[in-house]
Amino acid sequence: MRVHDITVFSGSAHPELALEICDHLGVPLRPSRLSRFANDCLEVQLQANCRERDVFIIQPLVPPVQEHLVELLLMLDAARGASAARITVVMPHFAYARSDKKDAPRISLGGRLVADLLVAAGADRVLCVTLHSPQVHGFFSVPVDHLHALRELAGYFTRYDMSNTVVVSPDLGNAKEAAALARRLGTTVAAAAKQRFGGDRVSISALIGDVAGRDVIVLDDEIASGGTVAELVQHLHKCKVGAIRVACTHGLFSEGALKRLSELPGVEEIVCTNTVPIPSDKKVSRLRVLSIAPALAEAIRRIHEGESISSMFT
Amino acid sequence: MRVHDITVFSGSAHPELALEICDHLGVPLRPSRLSRFANDCLEVQLQANCRERDVFIIQPLVPPVQEHLVELLLMLDAARGASAARITVVMPHFAYARSDKKDAPRISLGGRLVADLLVAAGADRVLCVTLHSPQVHGFFSVPVDHLHALRELAGYFTRYDMSNTVVVSPDLGNAKEAAALARRLGTTVAAAAKQRFGGDRVSISALIGDVAGRDVIVLDDEIASGGTVAELVQHLHKCKVGAIRVACTHGLFSEGALKRLSELPGVEEIVCTNTVPIPSDKKVSRLRVLSIAPALAEAIRRIHEGESISSMFT
Amino acid sequence: MRVHDITVFSGSAHPELALEICDHLGVPLRPSRLSRFANDCLEVQLQANCRERDVFIIQPLVPPVQEHLVELLLMLDAARGASAARITVVMPHFAYARSDKKDAPRISLGGRLVADLLVAAGADRVLCVTLHSPQVHGFFSVPVDHLHALRELAGYFTRYDMSNTVVVSPDLGNAKEAAALARRLGTTVAAAAKQRFGGDRVSISALIGDVAGRDVIVLDDEIASGGTVAELVQHLHKCKVGAIRVACTHGLFSEGALKRLSELPGVEEIVCTNTVPIPSDKKVSRLRVLSIAPALAEAIRRIHEGESISSMFT
Amino acid sequence: MRVHDITVFSGSAHPELALEICDHLGVPLRPSRLSRFANDCLEVQLQANCRERDVFIIQPLVPPVQEHLVELLLMLDAARGASAARITVVMPHFAYARSDKKDAPRISLGGRLVADLLVAAGADRVLCVTLHSPQVHGFFSVPVDHLHALRELAGYFTRYDMSNTVVVSPDLGNAKEAAALARRLGTTVAAAAKQRFGGDRVSISALIGDVAGRDVIVLDDEIASGGTVAELVQHLHKCKVGAIRVACTHGLFSEGALKRLSELPGVEEIVCTNTVPIPSDKKVSRLRVLSIAPALAEAIRRIHEGESISSMFT
Amino acid sequence: MRVHDITVFSGSAHPELALEICDHLGVPLRPSRLSRFANDCLEVQLQANCRERDVFIIQPLVPPVQEHLVELLLMLDAARGASAARITVVMPHFAYARSDKKDAPRISLGGRLVADLLVAAGADRVLCVTLHSPQVHGFFSVPVDHLHALRELAGYFTRYDMSNTVVVSPDLGNAKEAAALARRLGTTVAAAAKQRFGGDRVSISALIGDVAGRDVIVLDDEIASGGTVAELVQHLHKCKVGAIRVACTHGLFSEGALKRLSELPGVEEIVCTNTVPIPSDKKVSRLRVLSIAPALAEAIRRIHEGESISSMFT
Amino acid sequence: MRVHDITVFSGSAHPELALEICDHLGVPLRPSRLSRFANDCLEVQLQANCRERDVFIIQPLVPPVQEHLVELLLMLDAARGASAARITVVMPHFAYARSDKKDAPRISLGGRLVADLLVAAGADRVLCVTLHSPQVHGFFSVPVDHLHALRELAGYFTRYDMSNTVVVSPDLGNAKEAAALARRLGTTVAAAAKQRFGGDRVSISALIGDVAGRDVIVLDDEIASGGTVAELVQHLHKCKVGAIRVACTHGLFSEGALKRLSELPGVEEIVCTNTVPIPSDKKVSRLRVLSIAPALAEAIRRIHEGESISSMFT
Repeated sequence: MRVHDITVFSGSAHPELALEICDHLGVPLRPSRLSRFANDCLEVQLQANCRERDVFIIQPLVPPVQEHLVELLLMLDAARGASAARITVVMPHFAYARSDKKDAPRISLGGRLVADLLVAAGADRVLCVTLHSPQVHGFFSVPVDHLHALRELAGYFTRYDMSNTVVVSPDLGNAKEAAALARRLGTTVAAAAKQRFGGDRVSISALIGDVAGRDVIVLDDEIASGGTVAELVQHLHKCKVGAIRVACTHGLFSEGALKRLSELPGVEEIVCTNTVPIPSDKKVSRLRVLSIAPALAEAIRRIHEGESISSMFT
Repeated sequence: MRVHDITVFSGSAHPELALEICDHLGVPLRPSRLSRFANDCLEVQLQANCRERDVFIIQPLVPPVQEHLVELLLMLDAARGASAARITVVMPHFAYARSDKKDAPRISLGGRLVADLLVAAGADRVLCVTLHSPQVHGFFSVPVDHLHALRELAGYFTRYDMSNTVVVSPDLGNAKEAAALARRLGTTVAAAAKQRFGGDRVSISALIGDVAGRDVIVLDDEIASGGTVAELVQHLHKCKVGAIRVACTHGLFSEGALKRLSELPGVEEIVCTNTVPIPSDKKVSRLRVLSIAPALAEAIRRIHEGESISSMFT
Repeated sequence: MRVHDITVFSGSAHPELALEICDHLGVPLRPSRLSRFANDCLEVQLQANCRERDVFIIQPLVPPVQEHLVELLLMLDAARGASAARITVVMPHFAYARSDKKDAPRISLGGRLVADLLVAAGADRVLCVTLHSPQVHGFFSVPVDHLHALRELAGYFTRYDMSNTVVVSPDLGNAKEAAALARRLGTTVAAAAKQRFGGDRVSISALIGDVAGRDVIVLDDEIASGGTVAELVQHLHKCKVGAIRVACTHGLFSEGALKRLSELPGVEEIVCTNTVPIPSDKKVSRLRVLSIAPALAEAIRRIHEGESISSMFT
Repeated sequence: MRVHDITVFSGSAHPELALEICDHLGVPLRPSRLSRFANDCLEVQLQANCRERDVFIIQPLVPPVQEHLVELLLMLDAARGASAARITVVMPHFAYARSDKKDAPRISLGGRLVADLLVAAGADRVLCVTLHSPQVHGFFSVPVDHLHALRELAGYFTRYDMSNTVVVSPDLGNAKEAAALARRLGTTVAAAAKQRFGGDRVSISALIGDVAGRDVIVLDDEIASGGTVAELVQHLHKCKVGAIRVACTHGLFSEGALKRLSELPGVEEIVCTNTVPIPSDKKVSRLRVLSIAPALAEAIRRIHEGESISSMFT
Repeated sequence: MRVHDITVFSGSAHPELALEICDHLGVPLRPSRLSRFANDCLEVQLQANCRERDVFIIQPLVPPVQEHLVELLLMLDAARGASAARITVVMPHFAYARSDKKDAPRISLGGRLVADLLVAAGADRVLCVTLHSPQVHGFFSVPVDHLHALRELAGYFTRYDMSNTVVVSPDLGNAKEAAALARRLGTTVAAAAKQRFGGDRVSISALIGDVAGRDVIVLDDEIASGGTVAELVQHLHKCKVGAIRVACTHGLFSEGALKRLSELPGVEEIVCTNTVPIPSDKKVSRLRVLSIAPALAEAIRRIHEGESISSMFT
Repeated sequence: MRVHDITVFSGSAHPELALEICDHLGVPLRPSRLSRFANDCLEVQLQANCRERDVFIIQPLVPPVQEHLVELLLMLDAARGASAARITVVMPHFAYARSDKKDAPRISLGGRLVADLLVAAGADRVLCVTLHSPQVHGFFSVPVDHLHALRELAGYFTRYDMSNTVVVSPDLGNAKEAAALARRLGTTVAAAAKQRFGGDRVSISALIGDVAGRDVIVLDDEIASGGTVAELVQHLHKCKVGAIRVACTHGLFSEGALKRLSELPGVEEIVCTNTVPIPSDKKVSRLRVLSIAPALAEAIRRIHEGESISSMFT
């Protein structure tokens, strides 16, 4: 049988990222057609030969999430039926990962369900970035490569003098990520404790670590409405910190979030990656969008060539 | 273990139908909660005990189809996780059934894929109405009960004098259904041949059977844009037929279709069932909506009691 | 691991076709042994190394169908157990495809069942020719390549002057195939409507399209007893057509069918392909058997090489 | 849901046994229809409601084995599609159990394959009698109840004076069964050793245990051509034994076997059970056929009622 | 079929707990036999009828974990082969739940693997207590009922005056559990932050919430070596707290841990439940072991009867 | 994708054999790490890149069997999660193969269960040596290559004059193996019959074939406690045989067995292979351990290269 060529398709969620990845890989982005029938059903046609190809389908689960999810499942089905040698889902943002536990009776467990649906539709493996909790990895019955964006974020911040900076996590549950970034920047870490104790209201109750008089990088995995981050920024502001920079991997920024955050006192910059698309009309002058495309392209190349992914992080 | 009670939930696609079905069954419609998070992900909570229950989830796949499909999959997952004894998907309209063949290279086969997704999410069996092609039955790996609405339609038309009426199918592929209705009404059948020969354009090329001077019932499985039916009606009008009545099981009626059809010369009435919801603002005076709820309720009762469904059609 | 060589085996249903395919591929047909024990059980031994080979097993489901089906399943099991890299079932005639819908209560759905059995026994993919209905494709959970024989039939008929010819389908359900052949021949199409309306008897009720005074090619997917075709021929004869040629993909020709058809008035020729074996004692002078072997060999080569199959049809 | 009634169907292999079993159970044998199409494909229709029933399908795999196997698979598919609560295959003779090991390269392993096919077609459990080797039990992924016919055989022989009798196994591999019968009869056991050492020819090389001057019961699991048993009888005859009785569970008796065995010097009687049908024209005066129907009926009743089967053997 | 009786078996890990559960249920603990062969392989025999029974197998995964895991898998296999109607694994301690993420390349993910093994061996559902992380729930493809021991612990502490007490979590990741206990006791919560920032060493870096001068309950999910808890106790001691009580669900207490903890200054009491066995030679005077048996018995009863489990926690 | 390199890992059961195999293959044995946590759970880390590699994991199931089995399952899981192209379990001794039949009610069927567990954990194929019964092959749903050690044993014995030697099987069930060895040595065969007839006690009741005055090789598949072999040796000694040599594939030699056997009168030598490790403190002067490593290395090479394994035995 033939040597399996790499073949990349993009769903409609984030074609710009797909093009950028293909540019780094030096391969063309293959066209596909998405049709919507009168009854609102979708149909996908992959418009390049998939036979015995090493197929990668790029689709982050961003709003409208259900549309993008079903489109992705149909693309998987089409690639499988078209005799792809192997199909890798490249899902830079796996939104359903937040549904990772049963904290109420009789609720759906979306993270595990979507993992199963992807496999039922034909996924042989998954490549994703910064899952909400590391346990979600175990929801998949196929191999998962799990990247994070710390290298990109750290690389960006080295342009500044970091000697008087502290990385702050808005949630103790994610303090590990903040610590990892701090280690890369040669600086220290702090974390806010969200008090959910003794009531339903969530608010920041304490800051662990010294922040007074220091510049701050607030780091979270994703920012949607931005409420928690905003509260933390206001808390930090009261603590007489220096410049505040807000950083995250997935910059979802729901309606108005970006503007609200950028106008908070002390916020100099908001930094995210392009795992999800950021419409130009949302952009504000203080936003910096770093590209995850080189990392995803490198991971795809290594998956294709059988090289170690873990060595990318050393 | 306990005797398994019947427990009915409804997705958000067609709660009126679900309520009507429960009314016929004499059981309460159990509440469920659908939440949408900031990142557009959905979560379902079934708000009644499912343990060892015989659970039925009612959801036709109507627009927005992808939203309703994912909601249905999440409801299945929640019911399975909540230890339901058996889960039956009641899908009065299975929109993806139209994706039943590969008539172009590398396209998705939505009918089979969605069948597999339902099973992957926990469906033990399916109850549906008037599938687009009977072969779609074979796409499911779980038992399917397949109702049709002919009894309802025939019952309605018996109010008229049928002695000079002919049932016309707009498509020879569906002529079998038209013949079955004609048999129930004690009248004859005719069918239009859609000429796709020698070109891409589809148009009606011939009518098989006598129609001149007779009243007509045009019967289709579903009407969305209504283009084919409209052409047939105009064709029949030229053939000097009497009163024209248009009938279908699934009255999707996309934007403006209902008004267009009802204003065609000769059309006295448009008859459909409520397998899909028809918003009141779409309704026109010539529309008659028959209820499929009694039939679905009876089928659910028989599924639950282990009685024959096929005997419903004799 | 090694580059996977192509390795072809034949069941006992149609070794002549297998040999011809191998001849076109330029590879040897590998021997296999079929043993029948005293208790009527079968055992298969594949007599060539299958390890990491790209194995193709050729077996149309022709009478005795059950014998050939179980033999095929045993061959799949043997190839799987012998560590084949990939196993493709080459099934030029899938007889059970006709069991594609539940038109009576509690009947078996042979088309889907046999598809599942082939996969359970080890089939990784299927190559077949002219399935009875295109929906049968969706019965398989593995990739299917679906050839048709129009190129072969069209190629044959170009030897005649087609300027005054019409292709007639005996069934409106298959008119699409007839139209496709007509397009290839640059001629027109017509179709008979089988009247099953208002009674159990099936008979031809109408002919759509002009046939009077023209030469005719009657095209069907398969001819077994030939009853429908014979009725159509007699109908055409009354319509004062010119020369009649009967064509089909699968020439099953059950006992006496070939003779009966060839003796009908006006029938000049019967044309089929060799997807199924035609015993020499059945052959009549008016029969022309076209070989599907070059097309199957080319498809096998493309499957093996990872080239597009759909481009074979352009 | 309803309490699941017992519902019994029979394939075409051995309807007499099915009727007898139903008679013992006090339930009617439900009708089914087997159709054969012009292209030799089979279709099954179960002609009684299966919904939520506890369905038992009775079919030994006797010649024509492939026909009976495919018919059984179609019956399973029909019962599953008809919403049976549970489907038990009652397979009094599992002929493919003899294909239980790979003693040559690249051969099919029919015993495991057929076990998998039954499950793929819908079998929830299996009831069988005297498998060729006890390891075949492990080929099934569903529960198996495995009866033997020793109680029936022992019950029969108690009519004779057993004080001077020895039970002889023609194969040391099966000596365990002979010993179990001897224990029930209060007598001793002996066994022949088949010499396959140093050559391909199989012949009896030795008899372990004392036989001279004693009456003999030769016991095997199944007798098809009867060659080995015949050789053993001749060997015993030379050893000056008394009366010889031949006993087995499965009396397949291929062409002429019964007559040949019954005419051997010293053979007084041939005893088997009715796990497989014995056509009346095959019967000889020295043949005694014991009925396994009471045991199978009792096992079916216990499976249905959830009572212990193992306690049947104590 | 019969109404399915409850049938309980115990593996060899914790028979005392199984007996206590059966006592609460009012059913006998059924015997089983565990044999070890000369080659160290295990074999299980369940010594009571399982047919159509609702079988519960009780086995926490305590040392020797691998022995107890394989024994459990063999028990599942035996119950499945013996035709149990349903099999529930009652696993009061799921030790492998701690292997819930891939924090190093190419490591095993024991939590998911063991979940899959249990299902492969025949588990239909799982009942467990206080999983290490709530995401582990999603590793199972069968329904899981997840109890916690807060009701038991809270019930115990109400004997003391709680007005000046604070519940302290040694890990911010588990603070939610501590808060839930505090809510039940009508008191406040605090949590230690484990500093893993900027180095490999883990140590307590901060305490969130007021503790000085208050009595303390330290709450963790499990205590094995007890190192973290010991450090926290010493930290609290320096903070001038009052009486210190240590509480956990799973009291594994590896060699010497119990003695070490009980001798720390200020520790008045160590409280755990009997999800795992505590050998009497390990016990110290300050240890209180609460029984989880009533809760497990109640959950088993509700699972069997189809009653809500979630309502146990309200 | 890349050409898949061979990559070999060893569990902790028999690293010496793994090293020897790698030496023959000319590839390095890749390191792996086995960690045991405080709660006795295991974790495996494979310490070399597995991506798209052809991975072989070497682990015989020797005592402590449960530890080695779970370790093997974890290694499979790690290799699968690390994107191995194919994973072959090299299991020179499959101890659970002895649990191959249900000879008592409600017992576990360990042979089939472990086969299923290996596949559930990620095994794509299995390579094993001298299974206890050939039917165990059929317990696996993946391809199995089954070697035997006769070539090694025969090669060793050719150093002696075999002209007056007989190979004796202690069990007629295994006489086939003894015959095969005899054929290779150009000598004759004999077998002992174990009398289990008429009682529970097993003892040797007869010897088939001539042994008096001849040298003897006693051949068994495995020797654990050695009781049966010891009895046979004593029996042979009484028969006035010459030198006695004891041979087996799997030399488990439980406590004291080796010493007991070596001290029996007449025993000159005990010969086994190194499918299982033999601790040096167990070794006795009369023991000869032949290496199976060259055969396993050759089989691995052929599996990797896609060459025939069966031709190794011709």
